[in-house]
Amino acid sequence: MKTDKILLDHGSGGRASHKLISELILKYFHNPILADLEDSASIQIGNTTLAFSTDSYTVTPLFFPGGNIGELAINGTVNDLAMRGAKPLYLSVGFIIEEGFPISDLEKILGSMQKYAAEADVLIVTGDTKVVPKLAADKIFINTSGVGIIPDGINISGKNARPGDKVIVSGTIADHGITILTQREGLNFDSPLKSDSAPLNHLVKEMMDVSDNIHVLRDPTRGGVGTTLNEIASQSNVGIKLFEDDLPIRDEVNGACELLGLDPLYLANEGKLLAFVNGEDAKKILETMQKNKYGKDATIIGEVTDESPGKVFLKTTIGGTRIVDMLTGEQLPRIC
Amino acid sequence: MKTDKILLDHGSGGRASHKLISELILKYFHNPILADLEDSASIQIGNTTLAFSTDSYTVTPLFFPGGNIGELAINGTVNDLAMRGAKPLYLSVGFIIEEGFPISDLEKILGSMQKYAAEADVLIVTGDTKVVPKLAADKIFINTSGVGIIPDGINISGKNARPGDKVIVSGTIADHGITILTQREGLNFDSPLKSDSAPLNHLVKEMMDVSDNIHVLRDPTRGGVGTTLNEIASQSNVGIKLFEDDLPIRDEVNGACELLGLDPLYLANEGKLLAFVNGEDAKKILETMQKNKYGKDATIIGEVTDESPGKVFLKTTIGGTRIVDMLTGEQLPRIC
Repeated sequence: MKTDKILLDHGSGGRASHKLISELILKYFHNPILADLEDSASIQIGNTTLAFSTDSYTVTPLFFPGGNIGELAINGTVNDLAMRGAKPLYLSVGFIIEEGFPISDLEKILGSMQKYAAEADVLIVTGDTKVVPKLAADKIFINTSGVGIIPDGINISGKNARPGDKVIVSGTIADHGITILTQREGLNFDSPLKSDSAPLNHLVKEMMDVSDNIHVLRDPTRGGVGTTLNEIASQSNVGIKLFEDDLPIRDEVNGACELLGLDPLYLANEGKLLAFVNGEDAKKILETMQKNKYGKDATIIGEVTDESPGKVFLKTTIGGTRIVDMLTGEQLPRIC
Repeated sequence: MKTDKILLDHGSGGRASHKLISELILKYFHNPILADLEDSASIQIGNTTLAFSTDSYTVTPLFFPGGNIGELAINGTVNDLAMRGAKPLYLSVGFIIEEGFPISDLEKILGSMQKYAAEADVLIVTGDTKVVPKLAADKIFINTSGVGIIPDGINISGKNARPGDKVIVSGTIADHGITILTQREGLNFDSPLKSDSAPLNHLVKEMMDVSDNIHVLRDPTRGGVGTTLNEIASQSNVGIKLFEDDLPIRDEVNGACELLGLDPLYLANEGKLLAFVNGEDAKKILETMQKNKYGKDATIIGEVTDESPGKVFLKTTIGGTRIVDMLTGEQLPRIC
């Protein structure tokens, strides 16, 4: 590490986060399961393969159009489990609350957690609540961890992308990131922006029901689609070619990004997935996704090649090609 | 809830914490597994029974005699799993780090986590790191969640105390709580105080190997032995009689408690367990415990009666009897 202090950039989900994990954290915690760096670990218990995942949520503001921190905490961990093809079953919840936090706000958060846990069909079975003095934490942080069952024979991993695969995104990108940022900046637009927070496990189940050829699933949260695709290109040692014209981006999101000088490829999503699937199965998977409310805008945005392994390229609207790198620098702390 | 704000007392582990959980959190997350309120949830996956637990660590100072926040985070969750008779297997780690935190301190914490994970024989298989801006969190908070296997036929629960059971404590009480408090107050004593932080899973395994009659195991952390025994008395609907003369307390701990006006029965322990065991097996369990370095001061401190169910009594040194209630009010925030 070139710095002797933790920087915001270390939490961006981009290049600095990867360096922190690979150069520091893995040095101490090295084992083959953790080193996989998947959205959730795959662990063997007797004859059963489980997915196990954790995430802490520190988003600010706590309440934003389209969701709140509690909803993110449920959906985020449900999605991390689903991205291994697991059926999410049980969650833990750990609250760290600042003294003086309004109980009415806590109730709103608990209500959202209850609602989305019910929708995702998971049970919150264990928990912990810590209260810290005024100013020792900013309002409330929530950790959720989860376990789910990975069905026999399923091996969905960032390592499994293959040349010829089609890259599907389940809907419009950058909605969550741009919503949080404009909220903080106090910006208002004619067409209101809204987080896309959603539990994707049922969508994943429907995709798996129609195809045995889903190679990779990943939810592009911190660091956005651009960073997530770089992770997959690197883990699978393949090239990825994206088509700018095919990227689904709402007009209002595009407008806000242009205004603020942000690239939607690096903005967080909280209810979207990227799927790498066998080319032959792409159409039927896409049609299945489009029938689910969380996949209705699903579209193919790119393909996997054997050229330039480890790299992501964007074919631009005007006909050029540019490299899409991992996020460097922190676009936005406390996005989730 | 009589207050409209979260108070420090809600995180004490005592009466206010119990009210917050039972009146608010369980209202939203109600299900039979969570409602058990054990140190870890018991969940059924196929033919296997798993323990699943979570805890967030916010202790200040981060480094203290006898340990640091990283060590607590491993041992605390390992112990929560072991208190159901589970063999802890896999942990998750979630860091929330304040911008500017020294990487050298993070390395010390990671080193301790590695050391105690190795001692407890658990793997850290999944993780998450969030960085928040200066002043949004106080240095570093760590969440660990864990899963372990509960062997077939094992049912160790706070509900299982029975009249005639002996109550064993695995060693001296109040060491952790008094150490943190005196550190914060900047007090120095001739005999230095030291946290008792330790992983207890191997001790528990040895106890289970010699007896099938361990009814309850619980680690008396926040709220201390007094609060934990009240929880068990209430869950099992039994009375508990303690003998003040038999409570193992280091002289220096007793001295510091007297100086500061604190009751050692309510101070946190981070490497001790309470066991409720069949009277006939008590001696052999005790002898087994005393052979383990974390059980060498194990002793019988009380017994279970059918009188005054739900209550804990202390037979005092001078021959009287007083009720030991749950902790009310916050003795000490951020103890773990």
